[in-house]
Amino acid sequence: MPVVLLLVLSWLIGASGAGAPTFAADPAPTSKAAPGLHSWNEGPARKAITDFVGRVTKQGSKDFVPAAERIAVFDNDGTLWSEQPLYCQLAFALDRVKALAPQHPEWKETEPFKAVLAGDLKAAMASAEKGIVGMVMTTHTGMTTEEFTRTVNDWIGTAKHPKSGRLYTGMVYQPMLELLAYLRDNGFKTFIVSGGGVEFMRPWVERVYGIPPEQVVGSRGKLKFEMRGDQPVVLKLPEIDLVDDGPGKPVGIQQCIGRRPIAAFGNSDGDLQMLQWTTSGSGPRFALIVHHTDDVREVAYDRQSPIGKLDKAWDEATARGWTVVDMKKDWKQIFPPEMK
Amino acid sequence: MPVVLLLVLSWLIGASGAGAPTFAADPAPTSKAAPGLHSWNEGPARKAITDFVGRVTKQGSKDFVPAAERIAVFDNDGTLWSEQPLYCQLAFALDRVKALAPQHPEWKETEPFKAVLAGDLKAAMASAEKGIVGMVMTTHTGMTTEEFTRTVNDWIGTAKHPKSGRLYTGMVYQPMLELLAYLRDNGFKTFIVSGGGVEFMRPWVERVYGIPPEQVVGSRGKLKFEMRGDQPVVLKLPEIDLVDDGPGKPVGIQQCIGRRPIAAFGNSDGDLQMLQWTTSGSGPRFALIVHHTDDVREVAYDRQSPIGKLDKAWDEATARGWTVVDMKKDWKQIFPPEMK
Repeated sequence: MPVVLLLVLSWLIGASGAGAPTFAADPAPTSKAAPGLHSWNEGPARKAITDFVGRVTKQGSKDFVPAAERIAVFDNDGTLWSEQPLYCQLAFALDRVKALAPQHPEWKETEPFKAVLAGDLKAAMASAEKGIVGMVMTTHTGMTTEEFTRTVNDWIGTAKHPKSGRLYTGMVYQPMLELLAYLRDNGFKTFIVSGGGVEFMRPWVERVYGIPPEQVVGSRGKLKFEMRGDQPVVLKLPEIDLVDDGPGKPVGIQQCIGRRPIAAFGNSDGDLQMLQWTTSGSGPRFALIVHHTDDVREVAYDRQSPIGKLDKAWDEATARGWTVVDMKKDWKQIFPPEMK
Repeated sequence: MPVVLLLVLSWLIGASGAGAPTFAADPAPTSKAAPGLHSWNEGPARKAITDFVGRVTKQGSKDFVPAAERIAVFDNDGTLWSEQPLYCQLAFALDRVKALAPQHPEWKETEPFKAVLAGDLKAAMASAEKGIVGMVMTTHTGMTTEEFTRTVNDWIGTAKHPKSGRLYTGMVYQPMLELLAYLRDNGFKTFIVSGGGVEFMRPWVERVYGIPPEQVVGSRGKLKFEMRGDQPVVLKLPEIDLVDDGPGKPVGIQQCIGRRPIAAFGNSDGDLQMLQWTTSGSGPRFALIVHHTDDVREVAYDRQSPIGKLDKAWDEATARGWTVVDMKKDWKQIFPPEMK
């Protein structure tokens, strides 16, 4: 995640003045119980989805795909939930620096911790990549996987999105929740394939997306098994094992799924290779890009955005006829009704 | 796999004289369609299995485990199929050396290839670890994942076990096939967690065990995504990424499953840490070791065997009350009826 974090921090600096995005209130909540794609307006995106699912599930059709091969992969940040104004995992890392600071008095004099603790992200950025990597490594490693899971659960249960004031888990896209359920109802197995840390996502994605931990592929650090007395533990080491972003996504898919997906869903250039890999297999294939066009209900961004830059993948979508969702036009509602 | 391969080769040398194991014919085939654990004799092993499954699936019981958490992990070599007189994957590697030799005239003068081509495994062994690693790397990498899959499929469809003359896929254990199906019928999700190469297993395990590729964890090499013209490929690189054996098994489980199993099945010291990791979680837990005791219908081996050594894990099973299958006593039948 160091490259991603650098991008985020540079963007935060650029956006630290005026112009930080705001989130408009949702339209009146609709019932979550309504089946199907009820938050999707009629239009080419919705039709492309239902046409594809119709073709691959129709017994006897030349495009029929057995259920076991109906693998669908979803990017997370910007595809299933909001990634603006900052990746949720970065907010987590910054909060961890603050929480761990009392045990690390040396951080008061060590960048990037010093700058983070002073709320000065510009200075944090100036300490360059090595410092940022150190920050993530320090706050995400040196503990057992179970200790880390507890920390994530504690944080995600209370941390609020800086603009909407909702829990981060309330910043998921209602139409995508419906799409996940619709695909599963049609025999698909849904996976997350994200640049985010796999150990950061697994504690909550089953509850939020209905996707079990074993169907989450993400960036990961190296792990080590050891016995502590007669208790075995798995330790998180401060070494990167896979950056599951860009060309790392087909690698993560091959390592952990081992079967080429037939449908892929993303929103940025970090998803380009996953979309290429998915669509170049034989038989029916589907690729969809979520285009952030709604600056009232969410944030509008694409070619120039340091977070979720959509440039090459957009050109490729146009050239290859991939489905592009226009969030403003295609989605009746962005976020689910807020849970009380 | 280099350590494993060294062990195998040293064992092959030791066993190159008399005493190589033979496989007796099976008893009269029973119907594969019969449901349940029909190849298991009544006894403590069968009872331990059915008691555990009964407890974790009984709604309202204090030991009830929701279906989503019923993760069961199985070692492959020696647990689901025979690993004697040599690991199937080693037979594959040796055959690949022979098949690729015409394109590598230099192998006639390069160890360990020279010795393998001359059928002299003792000399191959003498070329030491580096040479063996080179052999596996050369025969398993430098190609796309799809090319490798085709090679495995071609080989596994025709290669015969050296003693029984059966296809290797006919060397699976009928009682374990029944156990896999029984667990799945009771809401378990069954995974393979093997020291074998994940790309070697995935092409055939769904057909043979009913376990889909995405539920296979194994040793793996590094991969690389690249475009060849407008066609994306994933290349197998000659670098080891994970040795999924011994302490590597809990690491592979955490990386690819991300949830601690509640039941684990193995046969050797290479499974010890997986069994420890599985049984040390909270709530009901189950561990089982397949003990190779039948020198008539298969091969009897344990503490001294270079392949599938069962020593520390056996002691731990005794100390902790894990279930140990005595193949001779507990299994009515070892292999399935041969398919014609």
